[in-house]
Amino acid sequence: MFQKPSESDIQSAAIRIQPFIHQTPVLESGFFNELTHAQIYFKCENFQKAGAFKSRGAMNATLSLLPEELKQGVATHSSGNHAQALARAAKICGTKAYIVMPDNAPKVKVSAVEHYGGEIIFCEPTLEARESTLQQVIERTGSVLIHPYNDLRIIAGQATACMELVNVVRDLDLVFCPVGGGGLLSGTALSLHYFSPKTKLIGCEPLGADDAFRSFKSGEIVPSVYPKTIADGLLTSLGSLTFPIIKHYVHDIVTVTDQQIINAMYYVWERMKIVIEPSSAVPVAVALSGKVDLKELKIGIILSGGNADLTNLPWN
Amino acid sequence: MFQKPSESDIQSAAIRIQPFIHQTPVLESGFFNELTHAQIYFKCENFQKAGAFKSRGAMNATLSLLPEELKQGVATHSSGNHAQALARAAKICGTKAYIVMPDNAPKVKVSAVEHYGGEIIFCEPTLEARESTLQQVIERTGSVLIHPYNDLRIIAGQATACMELVNVVRDLDLVFCPVGGGGLLSGTALSLHYFSPKTKLIGCEPLGADDAFRSFKSGEIVPSVYPKTIADGLLTSLGSLTFPIIKHYVHDIVTVTDQQIINAMYYVWERMKIVIEPSSAVPVAVALSGKVDLKELKIGIILSGGNADLTNLPWN
Repeated sequence: MFQKPSESDIQSAAIRIQPFIHQTPVLESGFFNELTHAQIYFKCENFQKAGAFKSRGAMNATLSLLPEELKQGVATHSSGNHAQALARAAKICGTKAYIVMPDNAPKVKVSAVEHYGGEIIFCEPTLEARESTLQQVIERTGSVLIHPYNDLRIIAGQATACMELVNVVRDLDLVFCPVGGGGLLSGTALSLHYFSPKTKLIGCEPLGADDAFRSFKSGEIVPSVYPKTIADGLLTSLGSLTFPIIKHYVHDIVTVTDQQIINAMYYVWERMKIVIEPSSAVPVAVALSGKVDLKELKIGIILSGGNADLTNLPWN
Repeated sequence: MFQKPSESDIQSAAIRIQPFIHQTPVLESGFFNELTHAQIYFKCENFQKAGAFKSRGAMNATLSLLPEELKQGVATHSSGNHAQALARAAKICGTKAYIVMPDNAPKVKVSAVEHYGGEIIFCEPTLEARESTLQQVIERTGSVLIHPYNDLRIIAGQATACMELVNVVRDLDLVFCPVGGGGLLSGTALSLHYFSPKTKLIGCEPLGADDAFRSFKSGEIVPSVYPKTIADGLLTSLGSLTFPIIKHYVHDIVTVTDQQIINAMYYVWERMKIVIEPSSAVPVAVALSGKVDLKELKIGIILSGGNADLTNLPWN
């Protein structure tokens, strides 16, 4: 068997992080319901603290540290939402966050981490440089690695989003959830398994970064090689902890093209008047693709985040 | 004395339109609270049906018609949110909407009216052409004019947004509300007068279309001449019914520049992850301008609509 957060791990995570995160709203849209002939419930993690579900896992992992660990600070490498979320969690817990970022990271991402008081260590924009720099930072500072997804505390934290969803909307037939490294998807899978066992789960992935699709179909981890997609939060490969959970509990993984993702993102902005980032549009694109039969079903969609670059929109 | 909707007119409007509109959410933002040292509550009419508060007034006016009036259809001239809202209201009530639009109206606005089944009559893009064409349409069809703002049923309908706000948030010190023709502002003024009489009201206007400011200061209607602003919903002049209510019940009118409006709009999108149109950003810009002392106060802001052109954002 494989390791996984238990039912009570997820319930404890929810209680632990509750003062520091938003219980995000669940929205409906007449437009999308008509278009799909389904009843769709959007779990709006774009309204989450620091703009994405990543605040859940980062808070849970940081709050789970022993006092002597916490004192040493937390560390990760990320140029995305996990970096901001971890910097914020560290600030709330009164400790330091060391964030290794590639030196070509967008300025807006760097500023966001700085805004939360994170200490940024720049490195060459390669995975090797990121990992070796992170290793050096951890050795130098004694800080604790908080991996963006391959960590049971992170998975339990991300699981709380879907737990909230199924507490609000009962008897969902299907949930659509984006997949990058698999922290959100594996957590969502466990929340459905424990709290809504009849609900099926579809992982949603960009065609240009379809390692989870290929891993799921082949039965073993196929790493992401030269991924290329507008959904910049979904470039990473599945981890040794997330993959077995996904293999065991996810019903299917479906891919969509960047053009489908961009169209779905535009529709959400235009019709629902909410800002979502490209990665959030991936499950919406799957719902609109016709690849899964939704007719007459109750569907949950996890909108994972809202940190879009407003000055560079993909439809312009 | 001047004519105005009574307390029970507004309560009746709320009941009448309730099945056909959203009771929109009230959102808060840590970012804006920190920035202003105030507690701000955003009434999100950008999430309203057809994307703006205009659905309230249009529904109330259309539902208030006698059966024999309703049969003849409704008519207006508008290239904006009232056009969509009236077309939608007519469709719901099973009658026709005749919408006079300038022949240079943006395609997206034309499509939106067509989407709701409105019949569009194009004319030259001048106020004279719009008014004379509308008059011809009314004579030809026997339809009933539903003016965008200078109509007591419209004012009562728009008033329900602020009535909902003060039902949810008690003891507001101040409300900021945009002003164009004054339908929303006069309705908001009456709702505060009846349902939250200690709350002061600030009308918020673009400097480039400051007829309400000048009318308010001079005590008589000064029409908008060559208005020019990014806030395209606020180009119209006050009406004979809206002005006396505004003069009597509004505490002050404050103007902001287009650059302040654009900055405020960007902040709302970036930080709150919601799509608002430029007109909605006007009261936010006033709140951020420093022109009104907000410190330690409870503030309501009416975000009037979300029909922004996503392909032409003002900060790009």
